[in-house]
Amino acid sequence: MSFGSGLSATTSVVLLLLIASLSFLPLSALAAEPKLRFGSNGEFKILQVADMHFADGKSTPCLDVLPSQVKGCSDLNTSAFIHRMILAEKPNLIVFTGDNIYGPDATDAAKSLNAAFAPAIASNIPWAAVLGNHDQESTLSREGVMKHIVGLKNTLSQVNPPEAKSIDGFGNYNLEVGGVKGSSFENKSALNLYFLDSGDYSTVPSIPGYGWIKASQQFWFERTSSKLKQAYVSKPQPQKGLAPGLAYFHIPLPEYARFDESNFIGVKMEKGISSASVNSGFFSTMVGAGDVKAVFTGHDHLNDFCGKLADIHLCYAGGFGYHAYGKAGWSRRARVVVATLEKLEEGGWGGIKSIRTWKRLDDQRLTTIDSQELWSS
Amino acid sequence: MSFGSGLSATTSVVLLLLIASLSFLPLSALAAEPKLRFGSNGEFKILQVADMHFADGKSTPCLDVLPSQVKGCSDLNTSAFIHRMILAEKPNLIVFTGDNIYGPDATDAAKSLNAAFAPAIASNIPWAAVLGNHDQESTLSREGVMKHIVGLKNTLSQVNPPEAKSIDGFGNYNLEVGGVKGSSFENKSALNLYFLDSGDYSTVPSIPGYGWIKASQQFWFERTSSKLKQAYVSKPQPQKGLAPGLAYFHIPLPEYARFDESNFIGVKMEKGISSASVNSGFFSTMVGAGDVKAVFTGHDHLNDFCGKLADIHLCYAGGFGYHAYGKAGWSRRARVVVATLEKLEEGGWGGIKSIRTWKRLDDQRLTTIDSQELWSS
Repeated sequence: MSFGSGLSATTSVVLLLLIASLSFLPLSALAAEPKLRFGSNGEFKILQVADMHFADGKSTPCLDVLPSQVKGCSDLNTSAFIHRMILAEKPNLIVFTGDNIYGPDATDAAKSLNAAFAPAIASNIPWAAVLGNHDQESTLSREGVMKHIVGLKNTLSQVNPPEAKSIDGFGNYNLEVGGVKGSSFENKSALNLYFLDSGDYSTVPSIPGYGWIKASQQFWFERTSSKLKQAYVSKPQPQKGLAPGLAYFHIPLPEYARFDESNFIGVKMEKGISSASVNSGFFSTMVGAGDVKAVFTGHDHLNDFCGKLADIHLCYAGGFGYHAYGKAGWSRRARVVVATLEKLEEGGWGGIKSIRTWKRLDDQRLTTIDSQELWSS
Repeated sequence: MSFGSGLSATTSVVLLLLIASLSFLPLSALAAEPKLRFGSNGEFKILQVADMHFADGKSTPCLDVLPSQVKGCSDLNTSAFIHRMILAEKPNLIVFTGDNIYGPDATDAAKSLNAAFAPAIASNIPWAAVLGNHDQESTLSREGVMKHIVGLKNTLSQVNPPEAKSIDGFGNYNLEVGGVKGSSFENKSALNLYFLDSGDYSTVPSIPGYGWIKASQQFWFERTSSKLKQAYVSKPQPQKGLAPGLAYFHIPLPEYARFDESNFIGVKMEKGISSASVNSGFFSTMVGAGDVKAVFTGHDHLNDFCGKLADIHLCYAGGFGYHAYGKAGWSRRARVVVATLEKLEEGGWGGIKSIRTWKRLDDQRLTTIDSQELWSS
């Protein structure tokens, strides 16, 4: 193998060694034109869809609905709910936080994925997805599911970041949300979104239960956060402080168990928090990084609260899908997050002023509940 | 800058980019001749010295000793205890697990460090040290303390691994213990030792208390563990499974709080476990890696137990130093660990058969207590 006629053998070996071992490439420079950007109203809105549990579509029945709702209820009700939410909220991004399909009941994983994401694709709104613990339980592996997702239209999902090849899991990536076009934040990411694969099940015999976010993923997160902070305060238009971040993944962190009715908004109807049985430290890693203001997971369909711990809100979206377990008479629901930029006195827009959230119920009026502020500058 | 007269500009740029970004260099191949090796008796013995709290030597008084012991008691008693332990146990390695000096009372950090490690240096036995939370509270920074330690005689301590330049803390490194000379394990590390900087205090305002092992350190640990596993099963003389590992650092993990008298050997006299107030996940990272069989910390001088959780023993050494808080009438103590190789039927030595531990008290007979097996093949 040769890198050029004039290259010495020693240099070639050095190059080969370097290239072969390069599991962490340099983090790429910010894209000249971000794929996501705050709107001219100074807002960026995210719709979170947790636990669709999509299977075979029309032939897949609904679980845990009222007797009067059973007939004719199927995965299509899940699709209809996404469609209605999109019309009602007109989000800038749709995030699917795993268990997008319910593998054991999905005859063909690719077809189920196509159908599950179809309403998002049809809306022409950018969307992103991560994996839950059930996505790989059909005909595709976790890697296969994530690769299939990445190939779908309008998605910003990535299998994994190009700069972190030795990372655990599939579906770890970040997205930057540029400031309003023409503002001083035009070339800055004013909001940083982190997507992580929280795994499926423990592969360690002595540790039962669900998977967790590994050191390699946390190290990638730390480096990415650090790079984004650096870019934020750098020329052109250097800013002070750091841009807020939001993290999306499937399985809640053990710290979600720290709340009770006195210190969260929403409900906690499940007996426990179905986190991993070990604490892999991602909460402390995020607190250390300092930019993430809120975490959004799914997994526990009957918990939909947001609680604040050490300056980070830990939020559930609540169950969305009709083929997912739920509670009859307790509406399926979705979480909305909106970040609002500061309107400058001299005109134009600054950095983020506040981040708010609410949920919408899949009832006739898509009732809004539990509106709350997550962060303000 | 040029890498050779025949090297193209493009290749040079690629090389430069690669080198500049290389915060994780390729892990080096195993040293041809390990610095540590099992003895011809098939044993490798480690003496752990926790919390010397050395200050100014003879003028620094002892804390928490019996009234009859106060007079003439100083840091020199700590030195004498090290000296006696070395004579009694003849260890192959001495490990100091932090709070080697007690910064607030050490007039000159370098002098205190020199004096604290003097008995180890004089013994000509290799030694290694990590930092506690008090080492940097004198005239040197954490980096300064670690750099000073690395410059001392006979130490195998390292400031940080050359392949992980962006790692948090100072004093993260690993040491390999080669098999018996002339055996099939001659060029294998039969026992892997990991040393980590568990930090001093949280730098995050919303998190009070002690520091913790960060994602960058855990990622380095994972990669090192993975490299060592690979080397173990590779030619020449490929072995099955993986060599056991032991981890040494200062601050106990939150998982140390999982034990009570029913499931540990030793004592727990402190009200709580003085771990960080967040769980940074190193326990789950170690369980995931699978090679570490026991963890050895200090920090809580009045706890000296070993308990087993998910196949990993979590052990304290108990307080060693006389200028450290303790309990009058409760002897200062040290922990010994010995790994024993399997004697092969055809002669010679195999991999590790068992790892045992005990403690010695600083009484007249250096009484041995709490002998227990930590692991067996």
